[in-house]
Amino acid sequence: MMKRYLLAPGPTQVPPEVLLAMAAPVLHHRAPEFAELFGQVRNDLKWVFQTQNEVLILASSGTGAMEGAVANFLSPGDKALVVNGGKFGERWGKICQTFGIKVVELRVEWGHSVDPQAVAEALRQDPTIKAVYVQASETSTGAAHDVKTLAEIVRPRDETILVVDAITALGVFDIQTDAWGLDVVVAGSQKAFMLPPGLAFVSVSPKAWRLAERAKNSAFYFNFIKERDAQVNNQTAYTPAVSMILGLKEVLRMMKAEGLKAMFGRQSRLAYALREAVRAAGLELFPKGVPSDALTVITAPPGIDGQAVYKQLRVQYGITAAGGQDHLRGKIFRLSHMGYVDRFDVIMAMAAVEMVLKDLGHPVALGQGVARAQELLRAGQG
Amino acid sequence: MMKRYLLAPGPTQVPPEVLLAMAAPVLHHRAPEFAELFGQVRNDLKWVFQTQNEVLILASSGTGAMEGAVANFLSPGDKALVVNGGKFGERWGKICQTFGIKVVELRVEWGHSVDPQAVAEALRQDPTIKAVYVQASETSTGAAHDVKTLAEIVRPRDETILVVDAITALGVFDIQTDAWGLDVVVAGSQKAFMLPPGLAFVSVSPKAWRLAERAKNSAFYFNFIKERDAQVNNQTAYTPAVSMILGLKEVLRMMKAEGLKAMFGRQSRLAYALREAVRAAGLELFPKGVPSDALTVITAPPGIDGQAVYKQLRVQYGITAAGGQDHLRGKIFRLSHMGYVDRFDVIMAMAAVEMVLKDLGHPVALGQGVARAQELLRAGQG
Repeated sequence: MMKRYLLAPGPTQVPPEVLLAMAAPVLHHRAPEFAELFGQVRNDLKWVFQTQNEVLILASSGTGAMEGAVANFLSPGDKALVVNGGKFGERWGKICQTFGIKVVELRVEWGHSVDPQAVAEALRQDPTIKAVYVQASETSTGAAHDVKTLAEIVRPRDETILVVDAITALGVFDIQTDAWGLDVVVAGSQKAFMLPPGLAFVSVSPKAWRLAERAKNSAFYFNFIKERDAQVNNQTAYTPAVSMILGLKEVLRMMKAEGLKAMFGRQSRLAYALREAVRAAGLELFPKGVPSDALTVITAPPGIDGQAVYKQLRVQYGITAAGGQDHLRGKIFRLSHMGYVDRFDVIMAMAAVEMVLKDLGHPVALGQGVARAQELLRAGQG
Repeated sequence: MMKRYLLAPGPTQVPPEVLLAMAAPVLHHRAPEFAELFGQVRNDLKWVFQTQNEVLILASSGTGAMEGAVANFLSPGDKALVVNGGKFGERWGKICQTFGIKVVELRVEWGHSVDPQAVAEALRQDPTIKAVYVQASETSTGAAHDVKTLAEIVRPRDETILVVDAITALGVFDIQTDAWGLDVVVAGSQKAFMLPPGLAFVSVSPKAWRLAERAKNSAFYFNFIKERDAQVNNQTAYTPAVSMILGLKEVLRMMKAEGLKAMFGRQSRLAYALREAVRAAGLELFPKGVPSDALTVITAPPGIDGQAVYKQLRVQYGITAAGGQDHLRGKIFRLSHMGYVDRFDVIMAMAAVEMVLKDLGHPVALGQGVARAQELLRAGQG
């Protein structure tokens, strides 16, 4: 008998209350009850997005919304600046290429945060760039990009939008869509939203809608204008994922009960405690820039294969974490603490990492990292 | 947001698979499908009880089966030897008194295990004693009684039965009903059986059935003969708790997949690791006799109120454990690891106890107990 624990950077743990809500009978999506439900979750989503913009709800993974965030705003031949600081930055580039967009790539060494001045400089060099694509939290490296400062750079430009992949950021740390001026913000259900995979959310600013009116590209399922026109009437263009939306209603109820500030505070406290614990255990954090509070990325110690850590965690301890991707494969391993996570998830994560490293022959003093996490996570601390 | 963790000595954690099985549509209890289900769980229960005896399934808590184990075998005026080594030993005495049984009480200092020779001596002194009532695991103190040796003492006596409350023992450690000759064994759903409260199980030996044929006492709902005559035909005398039995089927499937030996091995390994961790943290285990592997009972350190530990665990950390009862109130606190529990429950329990004791001003080196548990619970250890 081995329990299974999800500490992967998506999908994340789903609260029992949410599983229960999703087990309710399926509503018909053209019934008035659905419109009422849909209206409520649309409103509450705006609260999480900190926006007055429309937030579209899509039956897809986050990547679907990312595709829409390219196809709906740019036309073939348009130029986009893509910040590539990891696997998901790279994905922006691939999507742009698929839709005939000319990509100006700003490469950032994986693990680093982009220098906002490099973005400003790129925009100065090429004023025809219509969109800047970036991650708020680069899930493949654990680094955060400073989208607030990037928005200050992009906001004054009438013909350029800032598109933020906030899939592992929204609900984890403060993303002020309107106050900062983020034009397009993408999120997904299976991260801090504590739902199974299957829903994506995307907010669109008036400036971005203006681009959308003129854009010429192929978008049928991810046609944002069509979706907006349906969703403002609490309808959807195509069949919505009804049970997921029943779950989302419960998620938003839980989020409102906790409050944004308390939620960000909890996530930040857990992330800080795990980072400090990892350091106390004599291990090295991978991100060289600003670490994302969504996940903790640890450099595999010399002589230890990061994939072996990932595998040992899963096979021997029942914990699904994540390894590294592409050239980071074997060099890092990743533990998430997004969403439905509390201090004992962090303590378990640290305890398990210590045990696995010892299993694999790395000299580690069991309990040393754990003790640091315990100290920081005691009642009344932090 | 605070997750809730059940580390109480009942109810215990229910596996998701079991919750799901219990959420299936309710069967009618007189339908053939129910008889088939009931026949299967009856058979599988015999495997857990390690018996060829009938194992009755009752819609009640364990106390209901304890009542039946008095009322069905003894008549008013009969004598019973009751081993009172804790709250549940005391309960045997109270039930006996309710049914007009003359109680010969063998008091054992709470926390100690009964000396089997004291039982032998009491039976020698009064050969009219018809039943010996004892706990295999005394949940109020964390001590186990040696029911195997007690059975060796009682077995040769044709007119005396041994009645074992195995509510927090069965499924935790080896209880060989037939091989040892335990006449009546009582168990409950909300312990190692990983179900919500609501079912009790009781096995009855041929010797006990002979007593039952002659016993004159009031038993309507807990009439074991009536139940046996129904249950051997895969029926029940009264309405069974159908959803609980759907859950029980899944529990027994999980137990068979693990195997009795592996299950006892896991429970023993977890219990041992927590006891060793508690000692490593400089704390004292309460049981002076043989500790039960069902739960770990810790003596509150000098100056620390055991109820404050219990309360701090629950209110500040979301962990429901247990305090002490009666004269042990404030002096001990109890953490269970029965049933659906793995190494991270034990690590969490130890981490939380360290944190709470530090919160309450007790000098404790965070991580010290945890490190011991980690060492003992690493893959390939123990």
